Amino acid sequence: MMEATQAAQMAGQIVERVRRDRIWERLQELAQFGALSDGGVNRQALTTADMNARAQMVRWAHGLNLQVFTDAIANLFIRLEGEHADWPPILIGSHLDTQPNGGRFDGAYGVIAGLEVLNAIRDSEQRPLRSIEVVAWTNEEASRFAPGMMGSQAFTGRWALPEILAIRDASGVSVEHAVAQVLAADMGIPHRPLKRPVAACIEPHIEQGPLLEEAAMPVGIVTGIQGTLRYRVRVIGAAGHAGTVPRTARRDALMATIAMIQAVDALCEREQDSLYTTGMLEIMPNAPSVIPAETYFSIDVRQRDNTVLDRLRRAIPETLAAHAGRCAIDVREIVHAESIEFSESIREHLAGSADVLGIPSMPIFSSAGHDARHLNYLCPTGMLFVPCRAGISHSPDESANPEDLEAGTKVLAHAVWRLASH
Amino acid sequence: MMEATQAAQMAGQIVERVRRDRIWERLQELAQFGALSDGGVNRQALTTADMNARAQMVRWAHGLNLQVFTDAIANLFIRLEGEHADWPPILIGSHLDTQPNGGRFDGAYGVIAGLEVLNAIRDSEQRPLRSIEVVAWTNEEASRFAPGMMGSQAFTGRWALPEILAIRDASGVSVEHAVAQVLAADMGIPHRPLKRPVAACIEPHIEQGPLLEEAAMPVGIVTGIQGTLRYRVRVIGAAGHAGTVPRTARRDALMATIAMIQAVDALCEREQDSLYTTGMLEIMPNAPSVIPAETYFSIDVRQRDNTVLDRLRRAIPETLAAHAGRCAIDVREIVHAESIEFSESIREHLAGSADVLGIPSMPIFSSAGHDARHLNYLCPTGMLFVPCRAGISHSPDESANPEDLEAGTKVLAHAVWRLASH
Repeated sequence: MMEATQAAQMAGQIVERVRRDRIWERLQELAQFGALSDGGVNRQALTTADMNARAQMVRWAHGLNLQVFTDAIANLFIRLEGEHADWPPILIGSHLDTQPNGGRFDGAYGVIAGLEVLNAIRDSEQRPLRSIEVVAWTNEEASRFAPGMMGSQAFTGRWALPEILAIRDASGVSVEHAVAQVLAADMGIPHRPLKRPVAACIEPHIEQGPLLEEAAMPVGIVTGIQGTLRYRVRVIGAAGHAGTVPRTARRDALMATIAMIQAVDALCEREQDSLYTTGMLEIMPNAPSVIPAETYFSIDVRQRDNTVLDRLRRAIPETLAAHAGRCAIDVREIVHAESIEFSESIREHLAGSADVLGIPSMPIFSSAGHDARHLNYLCPTGMLFVPCRAGISHSPDESANPEDLEAGTKVLAHAVWRLASH
Repeated sequence: MMEATQAAQMAGQIVERVRRDRIWERLQELAQFGALSDGGVNRQALTTADMNARAQMVRWAHGLNLQVFTDAIANLFIRLEGEHADWPPILIGSHLDTQPNGGRFDGAYGVIAGLEVLNAIRDSEQRPLRSIEVVAWTNEEASRFAPGMMGSQAFTGRWALPEILAIRDASGVSVEHAVAQVLAADMGIPHRPLKRPVAACIEPHIEQGPLLEEAAMPVGIVTGIQGTLRYRVRVIGAAGHAGTVPRTARRDALMATIAMIQAVDALCEREQDSLYTTGMLEIMPNAPSVIPAETYFSIDVRQRDNTVLDRLRRAIPETLAAHAGRCAIDVREIVHAESIEFSESIREHLAGSADVLGIPSMPIFSSAGHDARHLNYLCPTGMLFVPCRAGISHSPDESANPEDLEAGTKVLAHAVWRLASH
């Protein structure tokens, strides 16, 4: 075991080898996979674009002479082996998939920052005691297959693999089929089991909110993640001619949907200003002169206080039922994730690295969900945030400063090296 | 010119040759073009299914040794030539296109009833003084290309042909292109000009409402058509992460849309219970954890009183603007059709035929729009309604009794023969 002072000294040497331009160029290169004409990225989980981004990660790993592994849910691991190959590794990373109209930094930054740490260690010609692995978790975003965070939940055993594999996308393709396609394209990358022991996990990510930018802080040490409730609601009314069916005889699925959305939104507003979003709404048959026969919509609620979250969880199905009018409804809860706090020792460790490097940092609570939520149940886990421009995320307008991306990666490199030294 | 009594006598002979089974079988045969697995029909205007239905009409016409014509908007005419070929003809018919999830009777009944009249005349080996033409107007429904009633509006000159041809469907195909495809498949059917003189026009149709069935009346003589306003509204907000953007910072296009729909619906309810429908609503990017950046929706308002209709027309754009919140909106009026009354002489003529045949009939006002609305500006025009089950239309559940379909066709045959006899 190295002395703590020696480890800190070597950590400083590695941090010096972190290269801002390399981080930036790799992020731009990844953004080519699923690139949209407006500068955004559509790289939904387990699509061809996602496979191409994965293949690029493998090329970079092989270029650095690093090992590559995958598993039964197609998580991707790039491993820099430590002196003690049998010790549980440190995991660092995030995800490569994006929203249908997403940006270049959400997820990708965490993976590229992790790769940069391994690259800096390689450049320093040092070897850690403990292995360090960069991970890209499968399907964090839930845009093609819902719910998301499939890779981290399968890995930690928080969700049974057969249940995940049975989920289908809008066109009926199962996760099982899509994963098999990705693994088939891997050309002999070895598999490792899910639920392996892990010493610690750190996920770097853009903030996806405005606080760090407003405070002019390059780094946020994440204290926890707010709770989430997600539902899918199907509303069944009756089609009819827009010009002939009298008001009183209508079973208009859209008007019922509107009443339900407003009622649940009002409920959330009363409950300590919980955040309410309906991001997905389909109506059938979707013809201007036909009364909507059916709708299918999403509900997403975020709340920090678990007591309030539980109260909302009881009230939302009742509120939907009370406002469905003459339509039938089918309500399915797809996510109930309580509010969590990250390991205090990891938070102090990260803050310590920032202090040593003279990089300003502040504690920050995460409003968005992340794979680290699930790792937190498996091992000491933490997150590092860097600012994004104007707090914009899940949008082609998502942007970040190269300086901040570098600062976050430096704190990551310093902290990870020290974690890997005992 | 024939004597009125002689004409009435011959009309009776033709009515006897109207065959219920033939009407029913042809309707079922037409329903195969665009058939859905649930018994419904998806035969949108100028699609392959529509072209196939049109080709079937041509085969039936040729089987009866009738002339077939088309025009620059691909309206289809089947002509039984009268003794005075140069006299303006009587037009009878409706449309072949359907809603995306429509039924077997809306539109199709009017065309098949018209064909049955010509068939009965052929079977009687009589010849009218005036030519009688069955018409299938192009794109009544507006489901693929909006607004609808393109064929009747081009024919009557109520809408300029170049403007119609420039309209595009959701995938960018123009009416011009789609019409050219249909005409190319016609194999030499001769063209005739738009805006030809017409002596009179009668459109048979299912009621699409419950009144005739409730009154146990096989035939309704339509008095007029209620007014219609149609809009398309684009709402522009800003995308964002569902978990991070605070309520006060959101420009949620869906929440703005909901507020606008509710406000205009409430306005319509106050204004003498005008009928309000939003049948089409698209949201972008339509991802559960992304705040909607944009929506595009339809507004359809029906009102019998033209004074109220005008008041609504002034109030709707203002109401939309007042409820758009922090979103930008683009409001486009695509239909402003005033409430109309059909020719009194045609109504009396139709009611007279029903009386002579001993078929019960009643006056009825049309809540739905029809091509006859536009013909009414060109020549004496009327409509015959037959009941449909439970008032259901624009749905696979649309249904009608063969007895009622026969009764309506008999009244049509009797009235048309008399109209064609002077």
